[in-house]
Amino acid sequence: MSDAPEAPVRPVPAFDPPYYMAVFTTVRSEEQSGFGETDARLEELVRGIPGFLGAEHAQNPGGLGITVAYFRDADALARWGEHAEHRAAQKRGREQWYESYTLHVGRVERSNEFVRAAPNRGTHDR
Amino acid sequence: MSDAPEAPVRPVPAFDPPYYMAVFTTVRSEEQSGFGETDARLEELVRGIPGFLGAEHAQNPGGLGITVAYFRDADALARWGEHAEHRAAQKRGREQWYESYTLHVGRVERSNEFVRAAPNRGTHDR
Repeated sequence: MSDAPEAPVRPVPAFDPPYYMAVFTTVRSEEQSGFGETDARLEELVRGIPGFLGAEHAQNPGGLGITVAYFRDADALARWGEHAEHRAAQKRGREQWYESYTLHVGRVERSNEFVRAAPNRGTHDR
Repeated sequence: MSDAPEAPVRPVPAFDPPYYMAVFTTVRSEEQSGFGETDARLEELVRGIPGFLGAEHAQNPGGLGITVAYFRDADALARWGEHAEHRAAQKRGREQWYESYTLHVGRVERSNEFVRAAPNRGTHDR
């Protein structure tokens, strides 16, 4: 429940398939009042959803943004999709914050990850 | 084959499920020589893959990047995964361009999209 991404920049890891992912791609409107607060609140809420595995976000300055959220199973994802505050935020998003968005929900069948081996920076044994 | 994303900023649309998506999340290293050329070449190549539906990318300046590519079916995605130049680029990415990455491949079961209705800007009938 607390393996949500932390401050150090690192992709969400690969989990054991199957799991679920929701890809939410957006272009924002010019009317962003209240967005930051709601976004922070949703991030807090999703971490409380049993089966939430993690999420990550990238944003082209002034352009496209992509958020991907990972869930252990379809039930976990459904719990998030049906959460009352989340639904209210979706509605407000359509009315105010987004020019356009697409949501793709998929069952992950395969995943892998790569992390560069640490160079000999001498950070140990000093 | 040419419905890849164009210049105007717009999310890749929702397609009729099922289809496939590959989410590739990266943190780049400091060694980026040759990346731009290879990236442009791969973008050209993937558009030639039968069953490629589109791709989109967002990049936090100096941080996480997310690329999502959409394919009609698992075969189309496999063709891309096995493409010789793509495989060579993956190898070079691990050696040079990436600090870390994760790839999640999933079968899209559900999707939807939203596009804000155009306001009355009077762009028609003038």
